[in-house]
Amino acid sequence: MVVTLLNNTPLAIADKAISKCWDKPKDGCDVARIERVANKHKHASTIEHLTYNFDIDGVSRALLQELARHRMANLSVKSSRYTLKELKDEASFCNNDGSNTAIERARAYLVPTGSVAVDYAGVRALEELRRCLQAGISNDLAKYCMPEAYRTSLVWTCNARALQNFLSLRTNKAALWEIRNLAFEIFKQIPDDHKFLFVDSLYLEDKLTEN
Amino acid sequence: MVVTLLNNTPLAIADKAISKCWDKPKDGCDVARIERVANKHKHASTIEHLTYNFDIDGVSRALLQELARHRMANLSVKSSRYTLKELKDEASFCNNDGSNTAIERARAYLVPTGSVAVDYAGVRALEELRRCLQAGISNDLAKYCMPEAYRTSLVWTCNARALQNFLSLRTNKAALWEIRNLAFEIFKQIPDDHKFLFVDSLYLEDKLTEN
Amino acid sequence: MVVTLLNNTPLAIADKAISKCWDKPKDGCDVARIERVANKHKHASTIEHLTYNFDIDGVSRALLQELARHRMANLSVKSSRYTLKELKDEASFCNNDGSNTAIERARAYLVPTGSVAVDYAGVRALEELRRCLQAGISNDLAKYCMPEAYRTSLVWTCNARALQNFLSLRTNKAALWEIRNLAFEIFKQIPDDHKFLFVDSLYLEDKLTEN
Amino acid sequence: MVVTLLNNTPLAIADKAISKCWDKPKDGCDVARIERVANKHKHASTIEHLTYNFDIDGVSRALLQELARHRMANLSVKSSRYTLKELKDEASFCNNDGSNTAIERARAYLVPTGSVAVDYAGVRALEELRRCLQAGISNDLAKYCMPEAYRTSLVWTCNARALQNFLSLRTNKAALWEIRNLAFEIFKQIPDDHKFLFVDSLYLEDKLTEN
Repeated sequence: MVVTLLNNTPLAIADKAISKCWDKPKDGCDVARIERVANKHKHASTIEHLTYNFDIDGVSRALLQELARHRMANLSVKSSRYTLKELKDEASFCNNDGSNTAIERARAYLVPTGSVAVDYAGVRALEELRRCLQAGISNDLAKYCMPEAYRTSLVWTCNARALQNFLSLRTNKAALWEIRNLAFEIFKQIPDDHKFLFVDSLYLEDKLTEN
Repeated sequence: MVVTLLNNTPLAIADKAISKCWDKPKDGCDVARIERVANKHKHASTIEHLTYNFDIDGVSRALLQELARHRMANLSVKSSRYTLKELKDEASFCNNDGSNTAIERARAYLVPTGSVAVDYAGVRALEELRRCLQAGISNDLAKYCMPEAYRTSLVWTCNARALQNFLSLRTNKAALWEIRNLAFEIFKQIPDDHKFLFVDSLYLEDKLTEN
Repeated sequence: MVVTLLNNTPLAIADKAISKCWDKPKDGCDVARIERVANKHKHASTIEHLTYNFDIDGVSRALLQELARHRMANLSVKSSRYTLKELKDEASFCNNDGSNTAIERARAYLVPTGSVAVDYAGVRALEELRRCLQAGISNDLAKYCMPEAYRTSLVWTCNARALQNFLSLRTNKAALWEIRNLAFEIFKQIPDDHKFLFVDSLYLEDKLTEN
Repeated sequence: MVVTLLNNTPLAIADKAISKCWDKPKDGCDVARIERVANKHKHASTIEHLTYNFDIDGVSRALLQELARHRMANLSVKSSRYTLKELKDEASFCNNDGSNTAIERARAYLVPTGSVAVDYAGVRALEELRRCLQAGISNDLAKYCMPEAYRTSLVWTCNARALQNFLSLRTNKAALWEIRNLAFEIFKQIPDDHKFLFVDSLYLEDKLTEN
């Protein structure tokens, strides 16, 4: 996957919001105060003014099933109803007997799992989908045999409060491996001067091994 | 699919809410007033007090991708991370060469599309998934070769305002056929005395042919 | 204030939602499982299916300022733009010199604070508002001299997850006294068999004195 | 009132989101396409990626009562529980008999309505509030005699979709005069290259007189 931060609200807006609540003079951006108010005192609405726009490319539709469940976020996703033409125009990925699977070429369409058995099964499902499309079956029917490894791409927008919640749930080791990877990639893309808002939301094994 | 209304808020609660705004005497449930305020005058927040809980069974994960995008609703969905055991314990759905596909038995797991080619491709993908599970591959990896026709099941809760929006978008003939079917099934399950809130949200071909 | 529960979703709907996620057999309503999943394991979306409709009468507009900030709830409030006629028709609440303030009669319009000075000031502001109305000034202008103690009334609908959040913030002793009273009144109105969902959200002094 | 745009997401992010859905090449920012997709075809989620942060200063708490009801927005408001010290330190606004009201000095605290009677009543209520504070009554009690004309200040953040909804409801001539003024002030602050997203949401008398 490739995650790119497209845009974000400057940290000073959260500082301005905090100044407003207590009518305190604002003199530059008081990071320590944001840390204290938003993180320590959990006055989380003050950081809802900060939004982050991410380009998320090359994640699976299995991941999308989970990502779409975070309702405090905005998604614009590559539609599987309107964008299967590229696959239709591909050459076959398999021989008829399933041998000689073109797993490298299929990578453009499928997220690899690390399990050879699953990845090969994915390519065979991809080939079935390609054949349905070539046979002139509409996308709206053909997509029912699409494997969940199928790659998708989206713009995802989230405010800082919702992003804290997302990171705390999805960096947890109980999370699905791919969305866990996404969560850490998103964290990496957060501007350095905003990272203090999110470090406590990360699930780190180190936290446990310390004890 | 099977859609069942599990519970709903009585209409009188919306009437009570409307009485409150204008401090009007409330004497029984004034349906004409609800119609006028909520539908004609678009004071839609007055019907947010009405919620409907639906059991939705036997829809595909393709449909779930779309349903989850309605953020003004609450979903509890059968998890594909925790509930694949039933499939693992099944006998094979295909011969090794893909012949003799057990399409009838597979129906318990896959939503039929009406396209034989897609449905057969779905069964072969289902069989691949079953073999991955039997080989001891974890659900979190194996599910990446799951076809989107895979059946799921959920409890879905929605208020009347959000349900109007859902019905207007998803009964439209531009909608994916399965979610369009779902939208009409949901409408059928709405209690008769509540239906007046939703009839204008339905997309009916008749509306067009009249002109 | 008078808080009345108008309607609520049966607890069994949350149990059904939990059964769905893990595809477990459902046999009656398993309260211990709801407690474990929703409260202990914080799978809070499973209790979003439960909504509660409250009639809240006789709270101040000062309280309303705070209550309206809980965005995961639905409100239908007595409008101060359309419902001031009753006050216009009242007799005077004060002599011209401010003496003989009709504080008892004013109680129908103002929430008492326990401070005599504030309550008397409120009555004088109420009388000013009454005179503006009697002089034929429109509600939309006259309401600008309305004191925040002015009573209002609303139907308030909230799901169990949002209600946990509301109770934890508003039973806290740092909360405004009137909304704190409201939070405890709301808790009292919750059906007994639902109360286990909310007891841990209450701020109780006893929790501290125990240590 | 003074409304200032503090920050906004560049329009190109909405264009990127639209490109994503249909997997179309993106070559600069295609304003005509945004207009077509978001406004004409009502694919409104594509403009949720655009957020606007406003500083709104000098509006009344009467207005705040209405503004807070727009739940698809984030507010950080000057707290009347923590910021009344400035008023406490003021000299008297009235003689004891209510004469010689310092209406000019009171303007720092009260939004003028254009009605002399209401504005004078407001000053007398302000003076009562000041006296309660000087008598050592806590803000949490004293604020109950605060008139709704009392000025407040906030940072308000809203995405383009919610802002369309806000403008369409609040520029309507049925809206409260002050929030109608706010709506037009907000529109003025929107960057010129974003204004096409919102012009159709404005209620303009001209629309009617044309017919």
